[in-house]
Amino acid sequence: MIALELTGIFAFAVSGALTAIRRQFDVVGIVLLAGITALGGGVARDVLIGATPPAAFSHLGYFVTPVVAAAVTFFAHPAFERLNTAVLVFDAAGLGLFCVLGTIKALEYGLSPLPAAALGVLTGVGGGVLRDVIARDIPALVRPDAELYAVPAVAGTLIVAAFWELNIRTPWAFAGVVVMIFAVRVVALARGWRAPTARPFIL
Amino acid sequence: MIALELTGIFAFAVSGALTAIRRQFDVVGIVLLAGITALGGGVARDVLIGATPPAAFSHLGYFVTPVVAAAVTFFAHPAFERLNTAVLVFDAAGLGLFCVLGTIKALEYGLSPLPAAALGVLTGVGGGVLRDVIARDIPALVRPDAELYAVPAVAGTLIVAAFWELNIRTPWAFAGVVVMIFAVRVVALARGWRAPTARPFIL
Amino acid sequence: MIALELTGIFAFAVSGALTAIRRQFDVVGIVLLAGITALGGGVARDVLIGATPPAAFSHLGYFVTPVVAAAVTFFAHPAFERLNTAVLVFDAAGLGLFCVLGTIKALEYGLSPLPAAALGVLTGVGGGVLRDVIARDIPALVRPDAELYAVPAVAGTLIVAAFWELNIRTPWAFAGVVVMIFAVRVVALARGWRAPTARPFIL
Repeated sequence: MIALELTGIFAFAVSGALTAIRRQFDVVGIVLLAGITALGGGVARDVLIGATPPAAFSHLGYFVTPVVAAAVTFFAHPAFERLNTAVLVFDAAGLGLFCVLGTIKALEYGLSPLPAAALGVLTGVGGGVLRDVIARDIPALVRPDAELYAVPAVAGTLIVAAFWELNIRTPWAFAGVVVMIFAVRVVALARGWRAPTARPFIL
Repeated sequence: MIALELTGIFAFAVSGALTAIRRQFDVVGIVLLAGITALGGGVARDVLIGATPPAAFSHLGYFVTPVVAAAVTFFAHPAFERLNTAVLVFDAAGLGLFCVLGTIKALEYGLSPLPAAALGVLTGVGGGVLRDVIARDIPALVRPDAELYAVPAVAGTLIVAAFWELNIRTPWAFAGVVVMIFAVRVVALARGWRAPTARPFIL
Repeated sequence: MIALELTGIFAFAVSGALTAIRRQFDVVGIVLLAGITALGGGVARDVLIGATPPAAFSHLGYFVTPVVAAAVTFFAHPAFERLNTAVLVFDAAGLGLFCVLGTIKALEYGLSPLPAAALGVLTGVGGGVLRDVIARDIPALVRPDAELYAVPAVAGTLIVAAFWELNIRTPWAFAGVVVMIFAVRVVALARGWRAPTARPFIL
């Protein structure tokens, strides 16, 4: 589980570092944006449920992983660019894992299902939103030209909350949701699936 | 009181959803921006005073209202555009109510008057600032071409804090401040009142 | 110590107010951006370590100083522009002081060295990042055309954490780090030192 979690942190950190490099941030900015992208969602969740200091500040691995990811990206980013698909796949794995783990943690803290699902989504997507706000991008989460991202996250966390309410709390059930979020995201990328937008204003 | 509060949440959520639609966010982005706009200020206040998990996560109505507002806006947004004035009036009511309720909650948590007033302002305007940051607008709160928004909020919360210190803690006194914030905002909109800016740089 | 701290708050508040004036924010926006710049880093640190309500909300001086700084800047900003160097020097002093004080506070709350250093950096640079996000600038912290800012902050907070672990906890040791951060920043400004960026993409 920890290995999976660190993989997700690594994938998110690489996406943050690549954004920072594209924006020509300096070396410190690269490390900071990698860390914020990787840890921001979980930190926000922990602050909201009152679990302070956040888990990210109490386990060294959470801290070291983004720094390593930033260093690797700093030197190897042209390869990562060519491996863009690999990064997106890692990121999709991180999304699935963080959404599910975040929802479970919020449920364990006694939140009711809908808020717990919302915090699961926050855990999964919060770091990427912070990354895009700092880099002055429209968050990929809400961009109309981006493939489905929040949709599988919202659906998956609602399923986790429903399982919890139905007392289906086995690792296999939750792992299934991780795989579902991951698969929907990857297929959406491959096929260019997008969510509908409102019909345009008649100006 | 709850009915008024949900009305304020609804109004803020509609303003978030309309912003998201103008920016062509997809359907999930519309719901998220509606929820962030409606609940962001109160959540920030609760995190700052240590009241975690925030109230928004413990009452279902707080959660459902933005979703409903987003759904309504998604289908009816051309009408809302024509009803832009109605939205602004609802928003002004929400501003007055949230500023006053936010200040009172902070005072009940033992904060001194000035910080409590600041948290009241945060409750009233925080969601809108988050909305504008995510949508990459200069926050309406500080834009020079926007009618008075923060001025009635700051004045109203200071009055609430003064009432509290003077042991004037009746519902009628606080309701009066809500009406005052609301009225100043609406009249400012109607007459185009603006706050002064610093004299320009001589370049 | 308090006098130094209020000096740092004043310097940060002036930088926030100057940014707001350049962006033509109105008078309330100037006060708000001054306050957010001056207090944002410390508030974020306190929220993350669970020290709520944050120190900034419990001491009146923390609140009054940014308002005074904003008022002074509002009327005197052409002088501050000519005194731009003075502002940068004040800001560097605030950076050094806040980084060190933030790290110590996190260590006192029982965090381990690396997270404590990260929170020290957040204390020192967080307000400026919020200022730049609200004003829609790329944060100065990560801009490649900005002189060293995060580098001395990161180095200094790591040294403070190391001192703490080695039981070197004398005021003089910590004051030395404040001076070091300050000096590196000022010399970087004078000589135009910058941190390296990643080699550019070959497009």
